[in-house]
Amino acid sequence: MALTGQSFLGGQRGALGGAPIQAINPATGERLDPVYASVSAAEADHAVQLAAQAFPVYAATSGKAKGALLRGIAAGLDAIQPQLAERAHLETALPLPRLLGEVSRTTGQLRLFASLVEEGSWVEARIDPALPERKPLARPGLRSMLRPLGPVVVFGASNFPLAFSAAGGDTASALAAGCPVIIKAHSAHPGTSELVATAIQQAVADAGLPEGVFSLIYGSGVETGGALVRHPLVQAVTFTGSLSAGRTLMDMAAARPRPIPCFTEMSSGNPVFILPGALKSGTDAVAQGLFNSFTLGAGQFCTKPGIVLIPEQPETAAFLAKLSELVDQAQPFTLLTPAIARDYARDSSRRATQAAVAAHAPAGDATPACPARAQIFATDLDEFLRTPELAEEIFGPDTLLVRCESPAEYLRAAHALDGHLTATLLGSEEDLAAHRELIAILAEKAGRLIFNGFPTGVEVSHAMVHGGPYPATADARFTSVGTRSIHRFARPVCFQNFPDPLVPAELQAANPLGILRLVDGVPSREPVSL
Amino acid sequence: MALTGQSFLGGQRGALGGAPIQAINPATGERLDPVYASVSAAEADHAVQLAAQAFPVYAATSGKAKGALLRGIAAGLDAIQPQLAERAHLETALPLPRLLGEVSRTTGQLRLFASLVEEGSWVEARIDPALPERKPLARPGLRSMLRPLGPVVVFGASNFPLAFSAAGGDTASALAAGCPVIIKAHSAHPGTSELVATAIQQAVADAGLPEGVFSLIYGSGVETGGALVRHPLVQAVTFTGSLSAGRTLMDMAAARPRPIPCFTEMSSGNPVFILPGALKSGTDAVAQGLFNSFTLGAGQFCTKPGIVLIPEQPETAAFLAKLSELVDQAQPFTLLTPAIARDYARDSSRRATQAAVAAHAPAGDATPACPARAQIFATDLDEFLRTPELAEEIFGPDTLLVRCESPAEYLRAAHALDGHLTATLLGSEEDLAAHRELIAILAEKAGRLIFNGFPTGVEVSHAMVHGGPYPATADARFTSVGTRSIHRFARPVCFQNFPDPLVPAELQAANPLGILRLVDGVPSREPVSL
Repeated sequence: MALTGQSFLGGQRGALGGAPIQAINPATGERLDPVYASVSAAEADHAVQLAAQAFPVYAATSGKAKGALLRGIAAGLDAIQPQLAERAHLETALPLPRLLGEVSRTTGQLRLFASLVEEGSWVEARIDPALPERKPLARPGLRSMLRPLGPVVVFGASNFPLAFSAAGGDTASALAAGCPVIIKAHSAHPGTSELVATAIQQAVADAGLPEGVFSLIYGSGVETGGALVRHPLVQAVTFTGSLSAGRTLMDMAAARPRPIPCFTEMSSGNPVFILPGALKSGTDAVAQGLFNSFTLGAGQFCTKPGIVLIPEQPETAAFLAKLSELVDQAQPFTLLTPAIARDYARDSSRRATQAAVAAHAPAGDATPACPARAQIFATDLDEFLRTPELAEEIFGPDTLLVRCESPAEYLRAAHALDGHLTATLLGSEEDLAAHRELIAILAEKAGRLIFNGFPTGVEVSHAMVHGGPYPATADARFTSVGTRSIHRFARPVCFQNFPDPLVPAELQAANPLGILRLVDGVPSREPVSL
Repeated sequence: MALTGQSFLGGQRGALGGAPIQAINPATGERLDPVYASVSAAEADHAVQLAAQAFPVYAATSGKAKGALLRGIAAGLDAIQPQLAERAHLETALPLPRLLGEVSRTTGQLRLFASLVEEGSWVEARIDPALPERKPLARPGLRSMLRPLGPVVVFGASNFPLAFSAAGGDTASALAAGCPVIIKAHSAHPGTSELVATAIQQAVADAGLPEGVFSLIYGSGVETGGALVRHPLVQAVTFTGSLSAGRTLMDMAAARPRPIPCFTEMSSGNPVFILPGALKSGTDAVAQGLFNSFTLGAGQFCTKPGIVLIPEQPETAAFLAKLSELVDQAQPFTLLTPAIARDYARDSSRRATQAAVAAHAPAGDATPACPARAQIFATDLDEFLRTPELAEEIFGPDTLLVRCESPAEYLRAAHALDGHLTATLLGSEEDLAAHRELIAILAEKAGRLIFNGFPTGVEVSHAMVHGGPYPATADARFTSVGTRSIHRFARPVCFQNFPDPLVPAELQAANPLGILRLVDGVPSREPVSL
């Protein structure tokens, strides 16, 4: 498949000649062809108009038909898996096996959402039958269910060129909900996005759906992205990236004449609390696990453990020695973009003025164009609590060790924490049982609590929560990973006293879809007599 | 029970002597004792601090215990029903039977939420058991459920001194979710609020819960209300009132260093579309139903039908004649406050310059202190579409008739509509079946679609949706009435790889609470083997 550099505006392709965007190979620094053309304002508007036109038809599309679309996209990605992973590797320098795995994860989540909407109960159908004889007032028949919001703008993320980009979780869940999507492709991997978008565009056509169900446009985040967020026909926004960019989008969405939900996933330190039993049962394994986690994907995971609380105990020295050894021996990492590499260097230098540098990987012989060396900073709890900047996320392969006299100090640390995606506890079951208050505080601070594991690696499933209080995300009531994430894009609509044939199939008396419904508050798949 | 004029700060009462607030009898204009004392900034802060202290304990309180609290409040209100209705009558001039009914509605919704949390499945527990043998990666055990957000600020509403005020739906649903509440009492019915708060304070004490679970404070909306919305420990806000005040609170919540959900229910025209069969089957009944609906509660319902689309057909003249007759004969209404009466007079005068006055009730002999005369304005569709001000809500007993050449024009009208709480269709089933596109558009514009009924009268049940796209509410993904409304105050938290005894009972393998859970995506009340 030859890349052209043009946006996808429904079933058509955008014009060439707009402001150029070109990917850079982060390993070599070379520019990667083709040059991508930023859309004009008129093209961006056209994509939204197409989405708004497609919405009524797509919103009324059955779960089975939406499932077929999602499976069609997944099949299209399967068919180009090697090419996709290779292009993503050139554009991101992420290892090929990881990228092949990311394609599988991406198709897996598309198929998970297909199953969800094919089964259909996700719409939370509720039926309160009429009570015409009720005194003092009759009750009218009420039936409600979730309906899609409308066109959704999805900002592709730099760190997951597949799983959080053009056909990533946001797209999959928005399409599953019945919302057309307009992707603002991330400028760091435009070719990967083009390959994915080609598959989506084809799948939309194959499914016989309106072309406006999907568009993908190239352009700057500020100008093109901002215009999309402000567009009156856009009904929701998703974004994964930095706190400053995410907050800007939140503010923009909130300041619209009609504010819209803006689901941003931004900044998380993912604190790890080491309890005594963890080090007692073997310091090397904990050090290795922690090292693997904070350097996974060159430390460019939303769930990178960036804050590690360590108790003073006999084994602490051995643990620190092992961790330092791993860092000292680490090869240079390649970051995703020159800007990320520059920020990593800047933020690490700044942190080195605020905390001790406990270990620092050597420069190595052959440094990549976008280099980063693994490093560990260290401080003590009082200094950590005095210096809010120490809790700020650095995007790259570093972490901050916060030395505490004992786990008794962890409550103080936990109370001071901001919102995070995750919080982790390492130790024995007895340790954990002895820290119930700590668990309760952390449950207020994070969306996911992990025991004896590391926060990187986010399962895409029904029970997953990938969200958390601000600044981890804009709204802790939602997750961006797992089947719960579909609820970002839906709202309940109630039909009062409607004739049975005129309500959606999900609400009809006979329950033709066989979904689980709440009838007078009681879950049931049975038909209802009205 | 003697009224004292003091706020409720947890288990204590506030100081006297703050800026005075005094209710006015809208029928007579007389000032009603006692004088209420606005809280100081320190008192408002103290209420929030108490709520934040209470939160960890209250969040961990069982559904049964929360149910007991809600039932205790309901019993306390039952015990003072006559006094409550009488005081509310003095403060609002709403008819006593309506207020007695509103007490019942209020206790009914408290008991509905009690049942919801006693049963317990509302927390949406999900369990994905560990798959240690899965390739290429093992799956950790994941369990998630909804947890309360934290302290919630509830602004009492003027138009429902009981059902949307101190112990109204917002309070009931927030307490049910596990969130302490701080009520900013509406200054128009401080005595009613004091009676209700006395019952709540007693119920909290009787339940042995931390005092900070409930506070109620008197003060100005701008100063005291604003300070509460900006308070860093407050996690969510609810408000029912005007668009301008609601938007101000939304903007304030969005501009916080940590933005919080601000659920405002603001402005709705509740359009009614009259289809031909409605008038064919009897014009008088439609006219009477519409008149009753737009004058119910002196037109001070969120769901008042303020926009009525009428087709040109042989029966139209008779319908308009009957409606005009009803208006011409209407007695003067008493509005809730001098400010509302002043605004109604101002807004009606302005509308009379933009639309024809089709009918206007006489002044009557004995006019109340806060008077309003029923009136109907009329315009045609083109004028309606040209003049956005005509779609703005007027709070009081008026409505606007929009004459259309035929129902074919309704699509044009529907497309132009802003967000509303409700949209109503009157006609035969054949009419309705012939307007599927209209139904689809209205489902994008409103939270509840009504066939052959009127929008006033909101059932408190499982399937109800009392919400809608902006400017009807801040966020159409939520409702403020019915059991779905509890979801405004909860967020999912996931426990990964946790030992069974350390997760909440809702997530434990044995399912000790017997709730419905999603196990690997499949609904079940069975125990799970982990």
